[in-house]
Amino acid sequence: MRLKRKDILAIEELTKDEIELILSTAESFKEVSEREIKKVPTLRGRTIINLFYEPSTRTRTSFEIAAKRMSADAINISTSSSSVVKGETLKDTARNLEAMNPDCIVLRHPSSGAPEMLARLVRCSVINAGDGSHEHPSQALLDLLTVKERFGRIAGLKIAIAGDIAHSRVARSNIHGFAKLGAEVSIAGPPTMMPSEIEKMGCKMFYKVEDAIRDAHVIMVLRIQLERQKTGLFPTAREYSKLFALDSKKLEHAAKDVVILHPGPINRGIEISSDVADGKYSLILEQVKNGVAVRMALFYLLMGGSRE
Amino acid sequence: MRLKRKDILAIEELTKDEIELILSTAESFKEVSEREIKKVPTLRGRTIINLFYEPSTRTRTSFEIAAKRMSADAINISTSSSSVVKGETLKDTARNLEAMNPDCIVLRHPSSGAPEMLARLVRCSVINAGDGSHEHPSQALLDLLTVKERFGRIAGLKIAIAGDIAHSRVARSNIHGFAKLGAEVSIAGPPTMMPSEIEKMGCKMFYKVEDAIRDAHVIMVLRIQLERQKTGLFPTAREYSKLFALDSKKLEHAAKDVVILHPGPINRGIEISSDVADGKYSLILEQVKNGVAVRMALFYLLMGGSRE
Amino acid sequence: MRLKRKDILAIEELTKDEIELILSTAESFKEVSEREIKKVPTLRGRTIINLFYEPSTRTRTSFEIAAKRMSADAINISTSSSSVVKGETLKDTARNLEAMNPDCIVLRHPSSGAPEMLARLVRCSVINAGDGSHEHPSQALLDLLTVKERFGRIAGLKIAIAGDIAHSRVARSNIHGFAKLGAEVSIAGPPTMMPSEIEKMGCKMFYKVEDAIRDAHVIMVLRIQLERQKTGLFPTAREYSKLFALDSKKLEHAAKDVVILHPGPINRGIEISSDVADGKYSLILEQVKNGVAVRMALFYLLMGGSRE
Repeated sequence: MRLKRKDILAIEELTKDEIELILSTAESFKEVSEREIKKVPTLRGRTIINLFYEPSTRTRTSFEIAAKRMSADAINISTSSSSVVKGETLKDTARNLEAMNPDCIVLRHPSSGAPEMLARLVRCSVINAGDGSHEHPSQALLDLLTVKERFGRIAGLKIAIAGDIAHSRVARSNIHGFAKLGAEVSIAGPPTMMPSEIEKMGCKMFYKVEDAIRDAHVIMVLRIQLERQKTGLFPTAREYSKLFALDSKKLEHAAKDVVILHPGPINRGIEISSDVADGKYSLILEQVKNGVAVRMALFYLLMGGSRE
Repeated sequence: MRLKRKDILAIEELTKDEIELILSTAESFKEVSEREIKKVPTLRGRTIINLFYEPSTRTRTSFEIAAKRMSADAINISTSSSSVVKGETLKDTARNLEAMNPDCIVLRHPSSGAPEMLARLVRCSVINAGDGSHEHPSQALLDLLTVKERFGRIAGLKIAIAGDIAHSRVARSNIHGFAKLGAEVSIAGPPTMMPSEIEKMGCKMFYKVEDAIRDAHVIMVLRIQLERQKTGLFPTAREYSKLFALDSKKLEHAAKDVVILHPGPINRGIEISSDVADGKYSLILEQVKNGVAVRMALFYLLMGGSRE
Repeated sequence: MRLKRKDILAIEELTKDEIELILSTAESFKEVSEREIKKVPTLRGRTIINLFYEPSTRTRTSFEIAAKRMSADAINISTSSSSVVKGETLKDTARNLEAMNPDCIVLRHPSSGAPEMLARLVRCSVINAGDGSHEHPSQALLDLLTVKERFGRIAGLKIAIAGDIAHSRVARSNIHGFAKLGAEVSIAGPPTMMPSEIEKMGCKMFYKVEDAIRDAHVIMVLRIQLERQKTGLFPTAREYSKLFALDSKKLEHAAKDVVILHPGPINRGIEISSDVADGKYSLILEQVKNGVAVRMALFYLLMGGSRE
């Protein structure tokens, strides 16, 4: 089985069937990482380039491990703003990498839309590993897999997403993903962090976390970008934390069997309290585990031949 | 087939026969990168260390992909000036790496002659991936391959090289390479960028690009190092560009079937205009493609057993 | 054969039998690095993460080569203080990496005890690649192997260690290791660099290098951390060098067949003179060679199945 598309750029453009194919493929790959020999020969001789214009140890490591467990060759290129090739545009970098015949480029970029531009320029597959405040599709897919595994379904569930919705590519990808699979999404955050086009996205909007999580099956807490404080989005971490951090007190407003997701890395005591992050509701580590499986599935569905 | 030498340090010291062997070997490896499974088992179990004292995403990536497509293990060591092991000389680094039994060290270094010193210190093979303003042999080899593929020969062709000849290891390697294979090389650039020993190299020298390219089959445009501006080599990028950038107007002085090379990364609008870089004459991406094949060939000819 | 422990955190906690098993296993792996095909399939499909919170090209490279020669997949994560994931504790990093199902994490960390904390948090194996001024067990093991190969035994030998004993994890690991295997350890260094609990460690203490090395079979010279100068531990490099550097003059006080070790990288002319470092007594490069073998042995004994 193989996806009919060349690239994975955004959850917004995937169909329900495509998302379900990715999730079921990822489920079937989970056991590979549980084996003693965590490796299948499926993508031997394929070249995957991890091209990261923003530092992200976690996501890069997940993609790299996924590539190696599929037996592909992984090449890492990390271009911090200081070391990026002087005077070269992303377009020229793309064409040059393309000339080396990679099978897939995984791109993390601070500019929304960069992976789409890259995908139009190259014949090989492109996976968006997070672009600006646009999308982070593999994150949403691993979140969907984690929720689906817990509840056996996505349709009909109530999902609450709390934090800086407006600037979060994780939120955007998840809103699209959960909506496509039939869940109902509520969002909560300070007014300065609410997206302007939110009505179009079909979410319920709340300004109090307590209200958003009231009937939720799943609470997704977003990471707050503390460096955004300077831009006036929120006054102090303490104040944000008081109003919006998910702690055991706010959690009393949620259902008893609610589960909690966070894309990581966690700011303990800022957007989530330690007892909640480490508590019984938390599926945070299951998300990380599923991240490897989802990325193996994406590589397989974009490049794979027959699976052994 | 195997080269009789241990190292590839400079085109100047290679014979015509050696260069031709490398080019024909590289041609035979090109199809590996076109396959679905881009990998031959030839160098399985060999250890290649990419030791880069200057940042070079592009060249390092090309060598790393070449190593992996030959099934060798590639180890990257990038030592920016800040992170280089404190107080350790290149000599000590070399001996220490040698003690780990690598089969080949690929060295990029800001000092001319560093790879030669390294080669004398270690038993394993050394490939010069660019040293100061001395040589960059794998770049010249990929340029030669690109030209040979286009014209079916090198002998008798007229090659024009434009830019900062004096400080360019690419120019130096190419002047030697094209001369050895029987081409005629002309150079053009500002007087401050002309090498003093140029007559000995057997090139025709021009101060106007238009004159140098008049009968050329191939125009090689060098990357201008904008940071050299401070040293007084040229007054402003704009002025350099006006006189020396290859644009469609200057290109009118060249033959209709001329081809254009550039070692990359391109400074668009500085030493080459975008329409020329992206135009029908440009072989720039073919150069990058051939770079992987040339490096596979070098690894094979230095370390290889029998090829499958 | 396999170690009964999950982790290698400190020489202090290993038994004599365990150390001897590691050394004999390492000896058997040395020939792999001498072959043309330097690779055994033993650890295929295992995932090893090199997690380095301090820069260390040399140690990281040694572990990476060891992993690849065992056919394991190696993932490098280098987190300089500037690029470390903001706001994430080592605990969270550990749990997240664990969720990706690695088989072994190799940790270098500036804080003493960090690997032990990591080991308690994760199910996979942890190897301490140097933690603060605590221990650096793989360094001591390669030192033991080097001495054992030269003398055919450890028991009964006299070992002198010179330099900043108090702050050296290399010294601490070696004092434990040589003592466990029956050698007698003397230490020498300035009073400000002597550990307070030294009597408990069972060493003889000297303030003059000449006295410590008088009957020694082995002299181990420690690397001086020049950046410690600011803290008042020693006045100037020149003065330290005059009193404590091992040069040919001081070496006259040692036995004629003494051998010299240094963990590297060497500060030439500071703690050791060039003629001594490069002279006939020096086993410094043999140490590096043994480093790869010891690390292959550790990987094998922690993760291995049956060896071919």
